[in-house]
Amino acid sequence: MSHADPNHWTILRLLKAKPGGYVSGTFLASRLGLSRTGIWKHIQNLRALGYEITSHPKEGYRLEALPDLLIPEEVILNLNTSWLGHSYHYFKEIGSTNDQALSLASQGAPHGTVVVAERQTAGKGRMSRVWESPSLHGIYFSTLLRTAIPTQEAPQCNLTAALALTRVLSRDYGLKASIKWPNDVLMEGRKVSGILTEMQSDQDSTRFLVLGMGINVNQQPRDFDSSFPYPATSVAMEGGQPVMRQILLIRLLRELETLMDLFLAQGFSQLLEELESRSHVHGRDVRVHMPHEEVTGTVMGFTREGALRIRTGRGEESIIWAGDVTRVEGS
Amino acid sequence: MSHADPNHWTILRLLKAKPGGYVSGTFLASRLGLSRTGIWKHIQNLRALGYEITSHPKEGYRLEALPDLLIPEEVILNLNTSWLGHSYHYFKEIGSTNDQALSLASQGAPHGTVVVAERQTAGKGRMSRVWESPSLHGIYFSTLLRTAIPTQEAPQCNLTAALALTRVLSRDYGLKASIKWPNDVLMEGRKVSGILTEMQSDQDSTRFLVLGMGINVNQQPRDFDSSFPYPATSVAMEGGQPVMRQILLIRLLRELETLMDLFLAQGFSQLLEELESRSHVHGRDVRVHMPHEEVTGTVMGFTREGALRIRTGRGEESIIWAGDVTRVEGS
Repeated sequence: MSHADPNHWTILRLLKAKPGGYVSGTFLASRLGLSRTGIWKHIQNLRALGYEITSHPKEGYRLEALPDLLIPEEVILNLNTSWLGHSYHYFKEIGSTNDQALSLASQGAPHGTVVVAERQTAGKGRMSRVWESPSLHGIYFSTLLRTAIPTQEAPQCNLTAALALTRVLSRDYGLKASIKWPNDVLMEGRKVSGILTEMQSDQDSTRFLVLGMGINVNQQPRDFDSSFPYPATSVAMEGGQPVMRQILLIRLLRELETLMDLFLAQGFSQLLEELESRSHVHGRDVRVHMPHEEVTGTVMGFTREGALRIRTGRGEESIIWAGDVTRVEGS
Repeated sequence: MSHADPNHWTILRLLKAKPGGYVSGTFLASRLGLSRTGIWKHIQNLRALGYEITSHPKEGYRLEALPDLLIPEEVILNLNTSWLGHSYHYFKEIGSTNDQALSLASQGAPHGTVVVAERQTAGKGRMSRVWESPSLHGIYFSTLLRTAIPTQEAPQCNLTAALALTRVLSRDYGLKASIKWPNDVLMEGRKVSGILTEMQSDQDSTRFLVLGMGINVNQQPRDFDSSFPYPATSVAMEGGQPVMRQILLIRLLRELETLMDLFLAQGFSQLLEELESRSHVHGRDVRVHMPHEEVTGTVMGFTREGALRIRTGRGEESIIWAGDVTRVEGS
């Protein structure tokens, strides 16, 4: 794990303040109270993180390019959230960001803690499925929410994250995405993101939740080989160009905070219309697979708690809290 | 915490095999491969646990009375369950048996682990309420269930424990008790037991549950002082005589295993009729308080998942997954 080195923040800020220009080592050394050798060591560390920095014997240092990494140096400074991501745990590689966030939760990590990884070696999906998490192509992060949500409503938190992503894709990238209840985001019918909520709760409400999200960002068709378990796509494939992951993550975290504040204050009531308009199954005939039964019917929308409203063949309305939804062909 | 000393088991078995008679120290020493001094030390330990054992210079040792403690020496040997309580953690005093069981769960404790305490210093009820847990008067225990139950159904596990207690009170003690959905057992309208289920789950199903139960057993009216937060009673008060707590616990654990096996196999479908006949609110007019709203109506029964079916004034049926139920006066 790496937290940002405070000296890194300062050096980057000073370099970025002179776009295209050089900043002298002497100046940096005096501002940081370090020797010029000390500055040089920090520059080496920044280069190791992926920053392209040229050095000139007389002129000093010049920032040529930022790495598209989800490192705290780039994400935290630009986040401007009021509570989300203020505790930011960054990993180049980790088993599962959700497992790490659950572990941090049990150690007392604060509300809004975010765990981000460039790669997961054991990414988790629903129903003990694997979430493919190749290095640097995607965004894999988990958010710890210390909040009391009624236990049976908590799984629907997924929808907040799904809605945040569809909003960002639409507003900032001009891309259309839809929400497949309960936990996927689709583009052109193919999966671009999956969400896994884990929680600790009592019979009434949650103690804490961990909201984990995996997003396919810069994958190309060759990255989804034939062994891939479902039709998948990426933001880059749908938009026709690569996307800066750190910018997408920052936008998404901001939107997630906004929506989570709304959801925690009043459930989905303010969001129902938008949720339904972005729903992949709204108005469609679907089959819902549940542990004890199967229901077929037409999706009428969501309840204020995010459960699915289905009108069955007999004209009755069923409220579905959890299940696997598939569209019935032809609808 | 104490686990039973294997030598204790053997000595107790040999003493119990001769009810009212003496067992010589020499015999015990030879059977256990210990010195007579070693036997004497174990007898002292058993006395410290509460066993009344007289010693006679020539005759040896005689068991006069068992302590009414929930110690493994007495509970485990007589349990005869197939999975419940095989890992049995006994505490004279602990903060909360649920907290201890949650902690054991995170350390990998097996399915069916039971945590029992003679006294809780921080007993927990629903909604962060306190559960009064005075020493030796009650039974306070938690059961760890490593099982995948749909997240929104898991809180209804409570009903399994409530039903187990009402069955035992009825069958073995001739006492009538009723279930107040979602988590209390009442006798004559007063609370005799409360249940707190805590769990770790994902959006679909539980990883594990901890089912905690507090039972007022031998309290007398003076033990429920005026500061008591609700009308309470005890098994002894209702039955008119003190009850051996260890016998009640053993019976309850056996019944809980039976009912839990049924519930895990097929939900409450086989138990609906009995649950409804023992329900404190069945057929009654009630008001249900929920986080977002309040519903008034007549209780029609339970769903197979243990949710409450209410017929509202407009003749519609509402399914209630969580809430506080109060009877409307006069119904």
